[in-house]
Amino acid sequence: MPRLAYLGPEGTFTEEALRTLAPDAERLPCANVSAALDAARQGEADGAVVPLENSIEGGIATTLDELAWGEPLLIVAELLLPVEFSLLVRPGTRMRDIKRIFTHPAAITQCRGFTARELPEAVVVAAPSTAAAAQEVALPGSPYDAAIAARIAGDNYGLVELVANVGDRSDTVTRFIQVTRPGVLPAPTGADRTSLVAFLSDDHPGALLEMLTEFSVRGVNLSRIESRPTGDGIGRYFFHFDLEGHVTDARVGEAVSGLHRVSSDVRFLGSYPRADGLTPQVKRGTSDSDFTEAADWLARVRAGQV
Amino acid sequence: MPRLAYLGPEGTFTEEALRTLAPDAERLPCANVSAALDAARQGEADGAVVPLENSIEGGIATTLDELAWGEPLLIVAELLLPVEFSLLVRPGTRMRDIKRIFTHPAAITQCRGFTARELPEAVVVAAPSTAAAAQEVALPGSPYDAAIAARIAGDNYGLVELVANVGDRSDTVTRFIQVTRPGVLPAPTGADRTSLVAFLSDDHPGALLEMLTEFSVRGVNLSRIESRPTGDGIGRYFFHFDLEGHVTDARVGEAVSGLHRVSSDVRFLGSYPRADGLTPQVKRGTSDSDFTEAADWLARVRAGQV
Amino acid sequence: MPRLAYLGPEGTFTEEALRTLAPDAERLPCANVSAALDAARQGEADGAVVPLENSIEGGIATTLDELAWGEPLLIVAELLLPVEFSLLVRPGTRMRDIKRIFTHPAAITQCRGFTARELPEAVVVAAPSTAAAAQEVALPGSPYDAAIAARIAGDNYGLVELVANVGDRSDTVTRFIQVTRPGVLPAPTGADRTSLVAFLSDDHPGALLEMLTEFSVRGVNLSRIESRPTGDGIGRYFFHFDLEGHVTDARVGEAVSGLHRVSSDVRFLGSYPRADGLTPQVKRGTSDSDFTEAADWLARVRAGQV
Amino acid sequence: MPRLAYLGPEGTFTEEALRTLAPDAERLPCANVSAALDAARQGEADGAVVPLENSIEGGIATTLDELAWGEPLLIVAELLLPVEFSLLVRPGTRMRDIKRIFTHPAAITQCRGFTARELPEAVVVAAPSTAAAAQEVALPGSPYDAAIAARIAGDNYGLVELVANVGDRSDTVTRFIQVTRPGVLPAPTGADRTSLVAFLSDDHPGALLEMLTEFSVRGVNLSRIESRPTGDGIGRYFFHFDLEGHVTDARVGEAVSGLHRVSSDVRFLGSYPRADGLTPQVKRGTSDSDFTEAADWLARVRAGQV
Repeated sequence: MPRLAYLGPEGTFTEEALRTLAPDAERLPCANVSAALDAARQGEADGAVVPLENSIEGGIATTLDELAWGEPLLIVAELLLPVEFSLLVRPGTRMRDIKRIFTHPAAITQCRGFTARELPEAVVVAAPSTAAAAQEVALPGSPYDAAIAARIAGDNYGLVELVANVGDRSDTVTRFIQVTRPGVLPAPTGADRTSLVAFLSDDHPGALLEMLTEFSVRGVNLSRIESRPTGDGIGRYFFHFDLEGHVTDARVGEAVSGLHRVSSDVRFLGSYPRADGLTPQVKRGTSDSDFTEAADWLARVRAGQV
Repeated sequence: MPRLAYLGPEGTFTEEALRTLAPDAERLPCANVSAALDAARQGEADGAVVPLENSIEGGIATTLDELAWGEPLLIVAELLLPVEFSLLVRPGTRMRDIKRIFTHPAAITQCRGFTARELPEAVVVAAPSTAAAAQEVALPGSPYDAAIAARIAGDNYGLVELVANVGDRSDTVTRFIQVTRPGVLPAPTGADRTSLVAFLSDDHPGALLEMLTEFSVRGVNLSRIESRPTGDGIGRYFFHFDLEGHVTDARVGEAVSGLHRVSSDVRFLGSYPRADGLTPQVKRGTSDSDFTEAADWLARVRAGQV
Repeated sequence: MPRLAYLGPEGTFTEEALRTLAPDAERLPCANVSAALDAARQGEADGAVVPLENSIEGGIATTLDELAWGEPLLIVAELLLPVEFSLLVRPGTRMRDIKRIFTHPAAITQCRGFTARELPEAVVVAAPSTAAAAQEVALPGSPYDAAIAARIAGDNYGLVELVANVGDRSDTVTRFIQVTRPGVLPAPTGADRTSLVAFLSDDHPGALLEMLTEFSVRGVNLSRIESRPTGDGIGRYFFHFDLEGHVTDARVGEAVSGLHRVSSDVRFLGSYPRADGLTPQVKRGTSDSDFTEAADWLARVRAGQV
Repeated sequence: MPRLAYLGPEGTFTEEALRTLAPDAERLPCANVSAALDAARQGEADGAVVPLENSIEGGIATTLDELAWGEPLLIVAELLLPVEFSLLVRPGTRMRDIKRIFTHPAAITQCRGFTARELPEAVVVAAPSTAAAAQEVALPGSPYDAAIAARIAGDNYGLVELVANVGDRSDTVTRFIQVTRPGVLPAPTGADRTSLVAFLSDDHPGALLEMLTEFSVRGVNLSRIESRPTGDGIGRYFFHFDLEGHVTDARVGEAVSGLHRVSSDVRFLGSYPRADGLTPQVKRGTSDSDFTEAADWLARVRAGQV
């Protein structure tokens, strides 16, 4: 039975993602994303499940930066999970009692309409995770009167759901990934995604255009691009890319090799089945057989057989 | 005397930025970025100063999203400010007393080395801003023992600086912007930056490459690109662009017009002097006089004078 | 009644083209393409009709170079004409009498199958035009026994058609153009073509790619590109381009202005109705109304109205 | 001693090129370019020397089309030869006797200034080659009074040089190539050229831009591009490309493989030392070692070793 670390405590959306991705796994809750990934890196766990991006908030900076800068890990699976927020309180608390709300900054943003409308006087304070907020609110003597978190967090910590679905949108989705220590890649399924990180060789104008051309010329579509600061001052960035296809596809292999040649560094983050199961449209001339045929032709040409 | 709203309370890095950008302005501290921008929008203030990005943390999501989705505002100035963190406590607190630290999530990340080394047992809790953390720690009965914030915040709220420069890097910089309600653009200085937001016309592969080509073909360099989710599900993004040059430059005008044609929407955020004073390298064929000459030639051609 | 010069003598395919393009025109036969164009330039004629390219032979070098280097002329119409070759002889000549054939080099190539099969022993000599060949063969004491030319040339000079359709392909087409001195451009019809010549600014690698990008980024399709030597040594070229659309179209105007900016010189050769009447597919964001809308938006932005 | 066919008869510029390229070769003069290439194809000769392009006239259509459509041959060497024209006559002929001049159409164009100035009344008739013109003029009873050709042609056929250097420019250069039947490629020298022909997969707008991008993205510079009609009607072209580098260079190999994938057909014409000895500038990330390093990295990534 594999053992998977995750962003805890119990009751986080990440736990729910882990239960879906690996129902039989032993679950190891960690205090934050970095701790979960470190547990995987150091062998306390066989892998980890962490959030990567949210349809409202965008990329989860800690996850993006850990994957780019920390000890390498491989993404082996992804999951899209609808996110529903509940207003959770200690038994007996009423709406009019709520003066201070504790929740994750993402939830602050996503529930701004509800709080402004229903609890205009309440102060909303940022918590490290929604489940941590629930945990804190459950403590006797907590300075907070309510948490915004997943319903399951309330169940875990003995809170009750005062209002369900307090998010401003009902279609918020978070994308979670499962990572392991480097080893064998998941086999290609025909509907795969490849993630990687690329650092500019130097900060010349057009460097990003050059990178994107490496993909487009081989017919490799990007499903996501996200810039992140390198930390070396304003105006210095590196890029997270998600590509359609598996690194064992010929077109993806040549494209990422090309990216490797024109970048100062490329870190491969994994090739894994797409959660949405969509198969990519293969542009004319970029199928594996097109590449094989071209390689055979080149070998003949180099041997003088024209 | 202009009145400028800012991300308060007193003692934030944003206040320091405001004092540098507009030393004579009356200062109106606001609870968060949205409130500061709303004060400018609704006329309570003549403008606002807010952080836009940080060399470690990247873009400030709230600022980016407010500029993209909220009532339009114009960026009229920018400032780069080195950021130095201090460990601030109530008088009498010693290192060994510190069990719970309160600070902004950006500071949590940027001071992780210090806290892990010097205060390995302490719990670090996320606050809405570093100055708000100082304010909270200063309250009698606060559950927190220390704040990580600017020294000025300690001065404002009666805390003492126990350790200076607790950030892991000494070169962290935050970029602040000053915005006003739409009106007259700052005049071009020869060393300007233009900011805008573009929404994809549809999510076809190559749409970003198409956008970047609109810039590169007119010799307009990007100094920053940042993707943000549209909120309509994973895989739907829009883009923040910072360009070298002023929108009254011919090459910038044609490039952003081209972007407007191929995008579903473009929002102009402003043209303003660059904080670093760098003048752009003008590519052959893209100066204002090249554009004027080409326009004259086209007029003659269309009149049949070849 | 307009007077049009053409590549004579009477009986050339060019005469046939002229009769179709301008049935009522007075016809002025000239010894070669240069003479016909000079007649138009110097006012001896109101215009000229000359061949531009052939579906087998490619561009007619003299025409291409005259348009690029000579006194400027405007293309105002084009025509596609099927080309059929006949073997023409003096009355009484039989196949077995034919030892020397006279014809234009293009016809030599295009009738090579026929001559190799039916007249393997005959010598084929190059003539300045097919009609000139017929004229020469018709002379008493001509060293040539047969001409390959249009049937009409035989009629004009008293030759008989010994064999019809001696071309190797039955679908050969020649494209003719009508030119005038610079003046008013033909009005756009919605199915137009624009011709121009561009000289590289310097011979840097990627200069052609740069030129083509000026077209593609504005959605302007090329229907023809032909390189020609500048005469300044091997490896120095300039380019003839045919574009879909009229120079008064916004996208064409901006594209050729862009070309003008990045080239050392651009010569406009004309915008005129396409012989095939095909209307171009207009790419999203490149219609005239898209350009107008973008220009209006830019004007508002520059006025600070965002 | 190798036996090389060439465009004869004796006295052509091609013979001079052959003597320079292969001083010890046995020379086999042929009636035209096609015959010379056929001699090489069918084993009557070990190879052939023919002109490929001229700095005034551009590509030699017959050579370009023979290489593209005929039985495959390999280019193994090239030579740049200055071309000087002489006015050649039978002994005793004076300037005022010259009524009819015979020469190749290229020489007609290149000596137009001289003939218009010095022999304005003379008729100039097209010959299959300059040497053939000299041969014809030398015949007793020739209808022609003078030939324009290389001085060597006069020597060969008993003509005298009445005027030297009658070309309008003194810097005209012709590029000749030596071809053989397919076999071993010339070894790379570091200053090589690669020639090939590519047919569009379909005639979509942007197809040429797509082809050029295959080169530019791998840092492969084009030294020549020439469009030729496919013969299937106006507006259908294929392309001759000359590239800097040898097909055994990694960047050239990947670029031509890419071209092969996106084209309906590519014919390799050879990799051979450049006549000018120039070594190409290698763009960052496109050296052979960059390709090897990237391939090694890809192999590791595919094995899960990140």
